[in-house]
Amino acid sequence: MTHNPPTPNTQHPAPIPGAVTSPKGFLAAGVRCGIKEQGPDLARIYTQQPAACAALFTTNAVKAAPVLLSMEHARSGTAQAIVVNSGNANACTGRQGLDDAARMAALTADALGIPPSDVLVCSTGVIGHFLPMDKIGRGIAEAAARLSPDGGPDAARAIMTTDTRPKMAACAFEVAGATLSIGAIAKGAGMICPDLATMLAFITTDASIDPSLLRSSLVRSVEGSLGSLTIDGDTSTNDAVIILANGLAGNEPIASEGPALDAFQSALDEVMTHLAREIARDGEGATKLVEVVVRGAASYADAKAAAMAIANSPLVKTAIFGQDPNWGRVLAAAGRSGARLDLDKVDLYFGRVKIVEDGTPVNLTPEEARRPMLAQELTVTVDLKLGSASARVFTCDLSYEYVKINAEYHT
Amino acid sequence: MTHNPPTPNTQHPAPIPGAVTSPKGFLAAGVRCGIKEQGPDLARIYTQQPAACAALFTTNAVKAAPVLLSMEHARSGTAQAIVVNSGNANACTGRQGLDDAARMAALTADALGIPPSDVLVCSTGVIGHFLPMDKIGRGIAEAAARLSPDGGPDAARAIMTTDTRPKMAACAFEVAGATLSIGAIAKGAGMICPDLATMLAFITTDASIDPSLLRSSLVRSVEGSLGSLTIDGDTSTNDAVIILANGLAGNEPIASEGPALDAFQSALDEVMTHLAREIARDGEGATKLVEVVVRGAASYADAKAAAMAIANSPLVKTAIFGQDPNWGRVLAAAGRSGARLDLDKVDLYFGRVKIVEDGTPVNLTPEEARRPMLAQELTVTVDLKLGSASARVFTCDLSYEYVKINAEYHT
Repeated sequence: MTHNPPTPNTQHPAPIPGAVTSPKGFLAAGVRCGIKEQGPDLARIYTQQPAACAALFTTNAVKAAPVLLSMEHARSGTAQAIVVNSGNANACTGRQGLDDAARMAALTADALGIPPSDVLVCSTGVIGHFLPMDKIGRGIAEAAARLSPDGGPDAARAIMTTDTRPKMAACAFEVAGATLSIGAIAKGAGMICPDLATMLAFITTDASIDPSLLRSSLVRSVEGSLGSLTIDGDTSTNDAVIILANGLAGNEPIASEGPALDAFQSALDEVMTHLAREIARDGEGATKLVEVVVRGAASYADAKAAAMAIANSPLVKTAIFGQDPNWGRVLAAAGRSGARLDLDKVDLYFGRVKIVEDGTPVNLTPEEARRPMLAQELTVTVDLKLGSASARVFTCDLSYEYVKINAEYHT
Repeated sequence: MTHNPPTPNTQHPAPIPGAVTSPKGFLAAGVRCGIKEQGPDLARIYTQQPAACAALFTTNAVKAAPVLLSMEHARSGTAQAIVVNSGNANACTGRQGLDDAARMAALTADALGIPPSDVLVCSTGVIGHFLPMDKIGRGIAEAAARLSPDGGPDAARAIMTTDTRPKMAACAFEVAGATLSIGAIAKGAGMICPDLATMLAFITTDASIDPSLLRSSLVRSVEGSLGSLTIDGDTSTNDAVIILANGLAGNEPIASEGPALDAFQSALDEVMTHLAREIARDGEGATKLVEVVVRGAASYADAKAAAMAIANSPLVKTAIFGQDPNWGRVLAAAGRSGARLDLDKVDLYFGRVKIVEDGTPVNLTPEEARRPMLAQELTVTVDLKLGSASARVFTCDLSYEYVKINAEYHT
């Protein structure tokens, strides 16, 4: 018994080759400096021309030293380089942590001949350990020598922690005869629950765009993408989303609402939604990408709250891992979310199969109900039939491997 | 390096033998009617004299049929029997579910010769399946025949689902020459996160106490016990906490504030804290009982929010399962809780070992930091040093077994 679930407002951008070096004038590098046991662990992104900059940082009251520094440096609205290390979060490291973050900015600025205030610093990894500044210093020097217009994928690999694969995306689009590009890299995996910003994501564009519009576009894109992503409900101390726009595409500057801004926004949405999906798909221990769509809600806040409650429920996530169409857990999670809900009206779908209608189970064979659970991507749709608001959240299942990774990823 | 953590206001009542049949005039039974694959699955609690009754139910917007019925029946403030089945939650079962719950009350009332409105009904188990009313009818008849003053432990066993052992407690105390008793049984294991009430707990007492004081005592006890308990952050559709007070101890009725009420409150606190600890210890897949104490908070709400965020964090829980003193995850969870927090002031202890002082790690060997993680009971203490409010939350770790249970406990 297959029905069409109410179509969510879903774009599934195909994976687009490219990364932060796709837009004009951006160079990047990813090198190994020896913080992690293996693999590259220091990344640099550099724009040949200073760029307009917008950034969103973790809302956690415990903010890592690099977050505090980058919040200050981003305030000017301009930046020219980002330096990132993985393997050590430089969080809960007190005064020395702040000094180390400032030193990372200074070393990078020296290597590039730019002011330290134009360098943003990010760190990700274990909390509570001081940075090995000798290694980082050597890595910063090497990264300067290796900066390249093809370095985006290397940078994407160098910011990984428990990620099993790098995340990157790019997009090109036309605005009034000019070709604009957006590129991005991100890391995710664990301690992922958005509040405002989430995890690390770096976006570059050669668009010329007014800094305040750049910021509002970023906020808007984040809400439906990285801001609608949860792996485990934990918000990191180090989350940052940074966009740099260097204007080298030579377009008429985007300075007001209109078709050019719309085109920019939709390209940015596409790139960021792709990153969100890839981060969810590669969540710690994930075997499935799960999209939770709540629609027919009385308000967007209700839809988002219900979708997040479902996406964060360990009971829902373990049932999906077990390929069990346990719709009761989905409704129970929606019910405790605080969203307005009248059980007698609720419909629920796994994939395209309607499982619950008006709050009671549809008469299906166990095989019919189980079939959609077998796919590698699952959409769970809850229609509250109370209003017209909807929200979509990206998540993954909860497996033995999540426990293994997090019980054994020692301090 | 061992320090004394600031002493939380912690009572650890020793396990007290007894159950709901310990107070005078209460009978109980637990029988097998065949809903679950094995074991007893129907319980009855009965007081020979109608009792004052107070009850708290799930705050989930998706409420099971028996919850809706019992809310109505409890409103009068009197009850004489409770009937409970395990193995089927009778939730998301529409009109038929409500009829079935009413039928459970009617059959029980008939068997006991009391009005159906004096019967409270609870169900726990799988969501979305209709009750097998033929089996339940036979079970209700058999339970009537088996009611006994020694039946409390049988009733405790009959309400279990994924619990690995029954939970029960009792307490006797003197008030002005009269000996009063409180007894209780509970079930927990999964879908446990309090909002007001949580899981199933049934408390009996032979105290004579004013119904409104009974209710306020229950609310107060729940806040620090079952209301401070989380296994997985999920609030069930069926949670209920019910207390019956039949007055058969013959004490001067407790009708106002004073030493008698204080004695009653502290005995009730003791019994309910014991249940909360036992439910946490027996959480799905738990290998450790964990108490999270947040103190020095600016307000009780802050302390509770921070303690709950820590106790619900999958990253904290998996680290504890891995016996890893990953204090960074604890601080990150506190940081995202919304509680007022100044990282530079925070102290953190695992057991009695101070791990973090003023926001930075104490210099310990890995062995020193790891030692408290090896015990079967772990207290995590966070001192915010901002004020004088504190809160304690009971939880457990998150193990492979939790995933196994919930990926394989099929609908």
